[in-house]
Amino acid sequence: MSLLKNIKIVLVETSNSGNIGAAARAMKNMQVHDLCLVKPQQFPSADATARASGADDVLANATVVERLQEAVEDCQVVIGASARDRTISWPTLTARECAEKAVAEFAPQNINVAIVFGRENSGLKNHELDLCHYLLRIPCNPDFSSLNLAASVQVVCYELFAAQGLKIDSSIGDHGEVPLASAKQMESFYHHLYQTIDDIGFLHVDKSNSIMRRLRRIFNRCELDTKEVDILRGILRFAQDNNKRVD
Amino acid sequence: MSLLKNIKIVLVETSNSGNIGAAARAMKNMQVHDLCLVKPQQFPSADATARASGADDVLANATVVERLQEAVEDCQVVIGASARDRTISWPTLTARECAEKAVAEFAPQNINVAIVFGRENSGLKNHELDLCHYLLRIPCNPDFSSLNLAASVQVVCYELFAAQGLKIDSSIGDHGEVPLASAKQMESFYHHLYQTIDDIGFLHVDKSNSIMRRLRRIFNRCELDTKEVDILRGILRFAQDNNKRVD
Repeated sequence: MSLLKNIKIVLVETSNSGNIGAAARAMKNMQVHDLCLVKPQQFPSADATARASGADDVLANATVVERLQEAVEDCQVVIGASARDRTISWPTLTARECAEKAVAEFAPQNINVAIVFGRENSGLKNHELDLCHYLLRIPCNPDFSSLNLAASVQVVCYELFAAQGLKIDSSIGDHGEVPLASAKQMESFYHHLYQTIDDIGFLHVDKSNSIMRRLRRIFNRCELDTKEVDILRGILRFAQDNNKRVD
Repeated sequence: MSLLKNIKIVLVETSNSGNIGAAARAMKNMQVHDLCLVKPQQFPSADATARASGADDVLANATVVERLQEAVEDCQVVIGASARDRTISWPTLTARECAEKAVAEFAPQNINVAIVFGRENSGLKNHELDLCHYLLRIPCNPDFSSLNLAASVQVVCYELFAAQGLKIDSSIGDHGEVPLASAKQMESFYHHLYQTIDDIGFLHVDKSNSIMRRLRRIFNRCELDTKEVDILRGILRFAQDNNKRVD
């Protein structure tokens, strides 16, 4: 949380109260907690509380102000989320660039950052953009570029969270407690597999190399753990035992 | 659009119709267009249309099916979004890793990918997870980890869209010219495997679910191609034939 504690999400003149609640939930999901509402149409509201779905603390601690200027007066950096291309060019950051800058550059300097989201239908007005140091853009379909307000907050806060580098484990050999089979165990398994498919009559000698190569490729990809090798060899034993009863 | 055209978003038993509409909007914002609904509580609905906010084409083209199996039968890769930690470990991808894999690895091979989102309150059931090759996790606040359904779809589709901007690597997988097996082909394979281990006497009825679950995990990890499935089923046939000679 510490890298995101100086981030404030500001919603300007939100007309749909449900969006306020959904934005609060999206923030808390990503450990962003500071919400400021500029002249919301209705707040507090039952819709906001319902859509917050447990992020009541974010709503309870939200500040409500009359003008954007008040919302950002304690912030050194103000970033305006904007779906529209502006004729006046502005320094523009993608959501990811913004998040990386916030975490790597602003947080270490203890800089307060406001990320400002405009009205559902008309965004931010020019005098509000004048308060912004950067524009933030979420890359999206140019033919259908209007994200729902809370969805925009979700993407931005997700990028902020991800930028902290709090990576979850995601290795493909994600086997928990059971250790992966050693190369030696795999060789015994392949030997057993070879004997079994020979026993049951599958193996044609002239093709054995290419078949075993193919089977090795399959099971090497799997990264079997020791328990899985035991199970597969159990099956092989049953297949062999059946065969012995035939001979 | 072309890199995302083989992506299908599957929503399982969604209870809140508004979420269906919001998910459709989130998809279209990110140029993902293929939506499949498994047994939605209500569809079509006025709530869905309202929240879709112009993504009516995604709703109009959505398919509705009774079971997850039908939704994914034309897909070679099935990815389940899951908020919960599972006791059985599964290969897990972050949203970003999933998107990069989809764009850099699956799209060039023309592989159909289903990304499956569970029920709002209870996620995916175990028999649904059995159909998945990977779990997808959205990094988030461990103390408040339940994202709104449409917000999850938004983050995943955003990552997919963003991943298109990355350089496309040649295929990482080991699959060459041979196409990956479809979910339907894999189900036939598992059915054959089940019959075979039953025939050879390996299967104890009381343990069959957990054994089959373990075997599915192994072979789902492999991403078998159609030729490999043929080889494995060839071996199974020999094992069964041996058994018949015994009886």
